[in-house]
Amino acid sequence: MRFFEDIEVGQRREVGSFTFTADGIKKFAKQFDPQRFHLDEEEGRKSLFGGLAASGWHVGSVCMKLLVADNQLQAKEAAARGEEIAVWGPSPGFRELRWIKPVLAGDTISFASEVETRRSSEKRPEWGIVQARNTGTNQRGELVYSLLATAFVPRRNAGS
Amino acid sequence: MRFFEDIEVGQRREVGSFTFTADGIKKFAKQFDPQRFHLDEEEGRKSLFGGLAASGWHVGSVCMKLLVADNQLQAKEAAARGEEIAVWGPSPGFRELRWIKPVLAGDTISFASEVETRRSSEKRPEWGIVQARNTGTNQRGELVYSLLATAFVPRRNAGS
Repeated sequence: MRFFEDIEVGQRREVGSFTFTADGIKKFAKQFDPQRFHLDEEEGRKSLFGGLAASGWHVGSVCMKLLVADNQLQAKEAAARGEEIAVWGPSPGFRELRWIKPVLAGDTISFASEVETRRSSEKRPEWGIVQARNTGTNQRGELVYSLLATAFVPRRNAGS
Repeated sequence: MRFFEDIEVGQRREVGSFTFTADGIKKFAKQFDPQRFHLDEEEGRKSLFGGLAASGWHVGSVCMKLLVADNQLQAKEAAARGEEIAVWGPSPGFRELRWIKPVLAGDTISFASEVETRRSSEKRPEWGIVQARNTGTNQRGELVYSLLATAFVPRRNAGS
């Protein structure tokens, strides 16, 4: 995890890809989004999605999973280099979540995160506020998912 | 599920409540958001959350689960009254998701949905566009979760 001073607008990370299987789609849907087109291939085909489609919440949760794994990898690498590790604050939320195209069984989605804005926090001078656009792109290069995340990022010399 | 003509700004539905258990919080976190404060009580207590906290994606997914169950109940009741059932379109996304306060192990969150705006779709005259504010409130009456959802809702006489 990086400090606010290390972050620049335009920085982009590919955070990994994930294949949505029919089993995985149905398992998530049974627990959290039991709509017909998320539970059954035939119902999916008859729907506007045109096939068994992952719940949008499943897509968002998988993106989160890959972001967390990437952050943990970055922290491990920084620790191995003997660097101090920044501990980010909790996320207050996000804006503009868009499910742009269906994610169907068998689709492989590649997720990325790109810094859009960075600014100081007026109320909390020890923190910076970073907005990053998280996106998912399918195996045909089509953008399927996008959201604008907000994070509180610590300053390197906050304590000094 | 209601038709566009049946929907008015200010209509509110309580869609149900859910208790987040420590086991449930950890299970979701292991799969989708394996950060320390979502996986371990002691790490949660040491964090800004002050306790084992549910992933924000878990809170959003549970809200979705209750909204879907409520919609299915409404559809069943309408069918029992012999009414025609509206089939809503897929959601294109949402705006302004806010995780306002932590959801900790043992918290019971009550979710509700209230219509904020309704308008005709210019491009698709057979559909209306409805924005609803979905919220979660804990057992102390504190708002913990909010998002502004967008849905395409069919008109009753679209085909005529």
